[in-house]
Amino acid sequence: MKIGILGAGQLGRMLALSGIPLNHTFKFLDPAPNSPASVAGEQLCGNYDDTELLDSFIKDLDVVTYEFENVSAKATNYLTNKVKVFPPPKALEITQDRIFEKRFFNGIGVHTAGFYEINSKDDLISAVKKNGYPCILKTRRMGYDGKGQYLLKSKDDLDDVLGSIEASNLILEDFVKFDREVSIICVKAVNGQTKFYSLVENRHREGILRLSTAPAANTNKGLQETAENIATKVLDALDYVGVLAIEFFVADGKLLANEMACRVHNSGHWTIEGAETSQFENHIRAVAGQALGSVNNIGYSAMFNIIGEPPDTESVLSIPGAHLHLYGKEPRPNRKLGHITYRSDNFADFNKNLINLTAQFL
Amino acid sequence: MKIGILGAGQLGRMLALSGIPLNHTFKFLDPAPNSPASVAGEQLCGNYDDTELLDSFIKDLDVVTYEFENVSAKATNYLTNKVKVFPPPKALEITQDRIFEKRFFNGIGVHTAGFYEINSKDDLISAVKKNGYPCILKTRRMGYDGKGQYLLKSKDDLDDVLGSIEASNLILEDFVKFDREVSIICVKAVNGQTKFYSLVENRHREGILRLSTAPAANTNKGLQETAENIATKVLDALDYVGVLAIEFFVADGKLLANEMACRVHNSGHWTIEGAETSQFENHIRAVAGQALGSVNNIGYSAMFNIIGEPPDTESVLSIPGAHLHLYGKEPRPNRKLGHITYRSDNFADFNKNLINLTAQFL
Repeated sequence: MKIGILGAGQLGRMLALSGIPLNHTFKFLDPAPNSPASVAGEQLCGNYDDTELLDSFIKDLDVVTYEFENVSAKATNYLTNKVKVFPPPKALEITQDRIFEKRFFNGIGVHTAGFYEINSKDDLISAVKKNGYPCILKTRRMGYDGKGQYLLKSKDDLDDVLGSIEASNLILEDFVKFDREVSIICVKAVNGQTKFYSLVENRHREGILRLSTAPAANTNKGLQETAENIATKVLDALDYVGVLAIEFFVADGKLLANEMACRVHNSGHWTIEGAETSQFENHIRAVAGQALGSVNNIGYSAMFNIIGEPPDTESVLSIPGAHLHLYGKEPRPNRKLGHITYRSDNFADFNKNLINLTAQFL
Repeated sequence: MKIGILGAGQLGRMLALSGIPLNHTFKFLDPAPNSPASVAGEQLCGNYDDTELLDSFIKDLDVVTYEFENVSAKATNYLTNKVKVFPPPKALEITQDRIFEKRFFNGIGVHTAGFYEINSKDDLISAVKKNGYPCILKTRRMGYDGKGQYLLKSKDDLDDVLGSIEASNLILEDFVKFDREVSIICVKAVNGQTKFYSLVENRHREGILRLSTAPAANTNKGLQETAENIATKVLDALDYVGVLAIEFFVADGKLLANEMACRVHNSGHWTIEGAETSQFENHIRAVAGQALGSVNNIGYSAMFNIIGEPPDTESVLSIPGAHLHLYGKEPRPNRKLGHITYRSDNFADFNKNLINLTAQFL
């Protein structure tokens, strides 16, 4: 099949590298020229909303998917009338807006942090009063990697924010005192076949994912089952096809859905070496209408993001069990330039090396 | 680095797919347009001996390697004066000629089947007399996948051959009554660091590799060590850099070197899923002057070649632990179109499924 991908960043690059061995070919659309994925397929360069460009993009495509989640509803709706688009654009619209997303979760019985829609300063004052401190003010749309977020711990913080921002299209969320953050990556095929990777534990710093370990340590069967049940509800409600990631807070042994991504996800990069079939290959299999591959873990995995500055390549390549993935991007502060996955079959070795690697790469 | 590869078939394709995550980019040279590797890099189309084309090929390259072993000495010598070429062209010249190859093996103390240089019908008659039946007559050069080979079991076979061929540039080899065929894949870095994958057991039919299993069953430590010692002699004698494969007959528990390939090898395709670092990635690391990755096995692996006809994709993808690799080639009798690697962590499961898969795919 010829598969079109909206966005040509590292996710598109890894999707194509995993799909080429299945004889699929790839075409990308991205505003930035010579994007990371362009080494593995043709890239058209331009705006996602340019319908003339979209027409030329889909001319020879069998299916369209995306690696970038802020493609406009206008673009996806235009495309769905002309070509198969997976995951369903409805999922994209929901995840693009934190209010839509939380209402969606709550609507299918999935718990989230308390939240309030904020369209004025009065809304904000009254929401903070109801919720109490600490709480987090976020933009409803286009926020990622911790951008557009304000943690409010006191009246002073609230006053600062009231004096400095425009209070519209925001969401105020209760600050959850969580024990840890986990995510589940799952995938659903066109015929309904569904698979769940093991829960992953995630560590963020400055709002950016730094480390994912899989399987998440000290996770009882009940937590994995609860996560799978929630994911099943989400997949069913959205008539989903493809890979979906849901991030959770774990607080008092319970899962609170934080956000979801209707695409392959950074917390699933370990699956390239650490699972029988990677999230990338399974996403491609799903959108191409093929049978899904096994999602069994292969040993124990830890994924470190490479952020802002390139690592010393030789020192990474010299670590037995370490796998380097660079995205072909120019260094820039807070930019995801690549990741390192460390994998081992031996739990004791894994834990010992994880400490050393964390000291080096976190 | 920008890496040039002479040849753009499936080996070049898998080399590029494994090297892109290390931020290397690839350029290929191959006479056949739109070759399998062209999805993962620019392909120049033309003859390997065209020096003008070679000049334009290497213009922006840091290093040149090859996936096709019959590149002429003329071409590699032309290149070595202008750019780094790994593995060393000397290795290529030796493996291109069965007489050179066997003399090379014997010269460093590595045992082979008995052999005779044949340049006339008299040579042939006298060699068969000395060796006795059965024996095999082969072309010295350009033979692969069993092409250009005649098994002589009797005087009748000899008479047939004497009546039908031109007796020059041939080799007569003793037919070894072997118990099984194994191969070792090894890799040497620019700094001399050397790694050996576990011995692989290979099954051929009609001269074409059909099945490789790794690690080779019932292999004692002594056999692995002997193979590694032989490989070390070869690597040292050739001042080698890159992946090298040596095929052996196992007869009475002893190893007889059959042939070698100074490139990634079909009997090493299982390493994509079945080893910590694939032969493809380690070849790229080696020729790029980087540290080698771990060659530890990950569970048990079996690789089936897909020959002549494409498989039923869905049935392959539905097998847990099966991995499909298609090469983007049009079906044609006896053509290698792809391979399937089956991998399992559990030896009992592996053996059970291996029987079913062998019945289905061998």
